[in-house]
Amino acid sequence: MPQEFKKQYKEILEKYILRQTEHNLYEGQNISRQLIQKNISPEEVISIHKASLEEIMSDLPEEVWHSFDLLIEVMVRYGLALKEHQTLIQKQQ
Amino acid sequence: MPQEFKKQYKEILEKYILRQTEHNLYEGQNISRQLIQKNISPEEVISIHKASLEEIMSDLPEEVWHSFDLLIEVMVRYGLALKEHQTLIQKQQ
Repeated sequence: MPQEFKKQYKEILEKYILRQTEHNLYEGQNISRQLIQKNISPEEVISIHKASLEEIMSDLPEEVWHSFDLLIEVMVRYGLALKEHQTLIQKQQ
Repeated sequence: MPQEFKKQYKEILEKYILRQTEHNLYEGQNISRQLIQKNISPEEVISIHKASLEEIMSDLPEEVWHSFDLLIEVMVRYGLALKEHQTLIQKQQ
């Protein structure tokens, strides 16, 4: 997991969980742009989200973390489709 | 949210939360293929996941659901990138 984004994402998530303001949501959109630029895959985003939430709310039932593992697995294919896109773009440049 | 997949996804999630078997994980990979084929965006997948989990574990703290809302917002940009990919593919055909 790209650790450089983990800290930043966790801070944004922590703020958003406490207060669902437009500003806090905007920070989420902002980091999203950076994640894509750095070729962070969607399944890695879910992993970052899971790891951040685990630190913020460590006492959630185990089922929640299992549910994230399934979501990560589902997202892998989306990550592959996106990678294909980036390859296509590079070929055209 | 594409309701046709909601029921199916919830069943898969329910099974996976109870037992993290290879087979149950495989079902997740399988539905992932169908979701992509039907042009379901990654943020819609997170919405389906959130709605399913809300039904399965309705007593989770509100913060969990807020966290999903941020994740959906982050995924929107990934959805746009993927849409761009599908448009490119169509143009090339």
